[in-house]
Amino acid sequence: MPSISRRGKTMPESPIRKLVPFAEAAIKRGIKIIHLNIGQPDIKTPKVALDAVRNNTLEVLAYSRTEGSESYREKIAGYYAKNDIHVDADNIIVTTGGSEALSFALGSIADNDDEIIIPEPFYANYNGFANASGIKVVPVVSSIENNFALPPIDEFEKLITPRTKAILICNPGNPTGYLYTREEIKKLATIVKKHNLFLVADEVYREFIYDGREHYSILQEKGLEEHAIIIDSVSKRYSMCGARIGYLVSKNKEVMQTALKFAQARLSPPTYAQIASEAALETPQSYFDDVKKEYEGRRNILISELNKLEGVVVGQPQGAFYCIAQLPIDNADTFAQWLLEDFNLNGETVMVAPAAGFYATDGLGTNQIRIAYVLKKEELKRAVHILKEALKVYAH
Amino acid sequence: MPSISRRGKTMPESPIRKLVPFAEAAIKRGIKIIHLNIGQPDIKTPKVALDAVRNNTLEVLAYSRTEGSESYREKIAGYYAKNDIHVDADNIIVTTGGSEALSFALGSIADNDDEIIIPEPFYANYNGFANASGIKVVPVVSSIENNFALPPIDEFEKLITPRTKAILICNPGNPTGYLYTREEIKKLATIVKKHNLFLVADEVYREFIYDGREHYSILQEKGLEEHAIIIDSVSKRYSMCGARIGYLVSKNKEVMQTALKFAQARLSPPTYAQIASEAALETPQSYFDDVKKEYEGRRNILISELNKLEGVVVGQPQGAFYCIAQLPIDNADTFAQWLLEDFNLNGETVMVAPAAGFYATDGLGTNQIRIAYVLKKEELKRAVHILKEALKVYAH
Repeated sequence: MPSISRRGKTMPESPIRKLVPFAEAAIKRGIKIIHLNIGQPDIKTPKVALDAVRNNTLEVLAYSRTEGSESYREKIAGYYAKNDIHVDADNIIVTTGGSEALSFALGSIADNDDEIIIPEPFYANYNGFANASGIKVVPVVSSIENNFALPPIDEFEKLITPRTKAILICNPGNPTGYLYTREEIKKLATIVKKHNLFLVADEVYREFIYDGREHYSILQEKGLEEHAIIIDSVSKRYSMCGARIGYLVSKNKEVMQTALKFAQARLSPPTYAQIASEAALETPQSYFDDVKKEYEGRRNILISELNKLEGVVVGQPQGAFYCIAQLPIDNADTFAQWLLEDFNLNGETVMVAPAAGFYATDGLGTNQIRIAYVLKKEELKRAVHILKEALKVYAH
Repeated sequence: MPSISRRGKTMPESPIRKLVPFAEAAIKRGIKIIHLNIGQPDIKTPKVALDAVRNNTLEVLAYSRTEGSESYREKIAGYYAKNDIHVDADNIIVTTGGSEALSFALGSIADNDDEIIIPEPFYANYNGFANASGIKVVPVVSSIENNFALPPIDEFEKLITPRTKAILICNPGNPTGYLYTREEIKKLATIVKKHNLFLVADEVYREFIYDGREHYSILQEKGLEEHAIIIDSVSKRYSMCGARIGYLVSKNKEVMQTALKFAQARLSPPTYAQIASEAALETPQSYFDDVKKEYEGRRNILISELNKLEGVVVGQPQGAFYCIAQLPIDNADTFAQWLLEDFNLNGETVMVAPAAGFYATDGLGTNQIRIAYVLKKEELKRAVHILKEALKVYAH
């Protein structure tokens, strides 16, 4: 029997994959599960986007342009301009989700055995894309005690080698909810310019910023044009994760020409999804205001309820819709499984994502979980109550 | 300025990319272009597929399952059963186009610097996917004189090294239209079993087989279960290239488990496209009968017209909707550009794909072009007439 590749063997599994059979078994036993583990929002997709697809008159569902249509990319440039990010259509490639934008970016800037520095904890799938391309993830630790702020620049510099090609950040962060300040972005700008690196920023949660704070994009930072690559996506912005539309955005022409070659190999991004995504740009501001208010309210309840729990340490997310919570337990994998296998409160339990999968350093995050607050407030409250009762039982 | 990767530098460009500016300039000068260069069918997408998307009642465009829904994969298994290919839902992963299925397959079975043997000429984008994954394409030449039949097995064996992981075929072939016989598939089966390799078959044109011939899939070959990986796609089958839905199909459990990890990293295939593709499985047989008859008629006209041209050698395609034509010229790149830049017949010219991009061996195919017969018969006739007149002028 022929054998699979080394990279296949080292491809990481999703942090919750191991839990799925236990969740399925719990459901079979009649247990209701509140899902704190996934970032699939319950928010409705803007009607203007859904209607555009329902009313389409295509007779041949043809390939689109490899980089997305001119008209769509011009409208995307308009969206960025409103966010004080000044790019034109040529600086944008439409991709199949932010995932593909990141794959193209990594492939364009790093070779097998090259290194990318990423503050951890980070979005677990970065590991997958890096592994698929043979790129080594070099983590730099950010800590829950500092609310996952940018680690000191010294810590980055210690890790830079001749093989380092880029620093990758997620801003605001999944799984931390941390929003990098303007000063932190400037520090990153200085170091990437000094060492001639790329700065790749996953800014898919740009719209979800709370407490009156403002997002500062790497493309707002003057002088960073040749270094900056933005990964973007419509998935969370318009609650249309199933569209699979993202963007790669850079003013570096060589990067764009190279990424376009990767894009050509896969022909085009999905056509229906582009119809929905182009229409979504017409979403009224009131939609975003409502959604932001809703998430901010959810965050407030989740964090204040979690803070009431004995022995629980929780970050204060300033954006996105995740938080990392440190629990008074030894091993979140075991605990998450136990929640599904052995615990319920009046027939209900919670499913959480063990946070170890969001760290690259072995042994970090083992007593932490990631919670996504994409549920209604009452449900979030009940979920924390279940967690509280579960922790009491688990301690004995 | 930070520099792009070596793999970025070596990513091949689409064989027609260089011609696009010349085509655009021709259009600006008022020249009408008949496109023989692209595989975008003019055939209408089945109404049942289009209607399913128009009538969708989604309110949240959510992620689908990573591997595609159970119900959809069960229906796909039913489709295969009708084609005498016996697989179940667990042997299928739904992907974003056949492109992604191939990326997952290559990543799962080959590491950086590993080798894949491919009969050339082959679908140009195989180069792109191999390059992105750091895999070396090792070509084995099939010749127009033999109508691009499978090269002698000796020729494959000479190329096998410890780094060889697979043989990749496209059946029926893009760009050749060649249909491998049952005997040829059996020969390939013997060699991959002997050398413990995978056999990857791109069977996206399975439905387009002419002259009463029958397609013999690698998964119909008994004893090949652990070696066989099928790449499939809805793009051409239902004329829905813009959906971006394909399948990876294998009975090798380790391959499927590994490919699933690659799939998890990118979350899910596009949701709307899956609605269309699942509905497309209900397309009545009459649709395929009509489409096949139409393509067969187009092929007959194209080939007989090309055969009338002095000094032109053309393969006899038995499937798909492409052919390779050898022209009495030195360099098809120059000729294709000249057709757009300097020639027209009553205000019309043709755009063709130079075939060199479909070969991995330098210097092969330089006097060949690929023609896609995805145009109406009258237009194909006119295109060959234009080509004939152009060749006359070009010779002087």
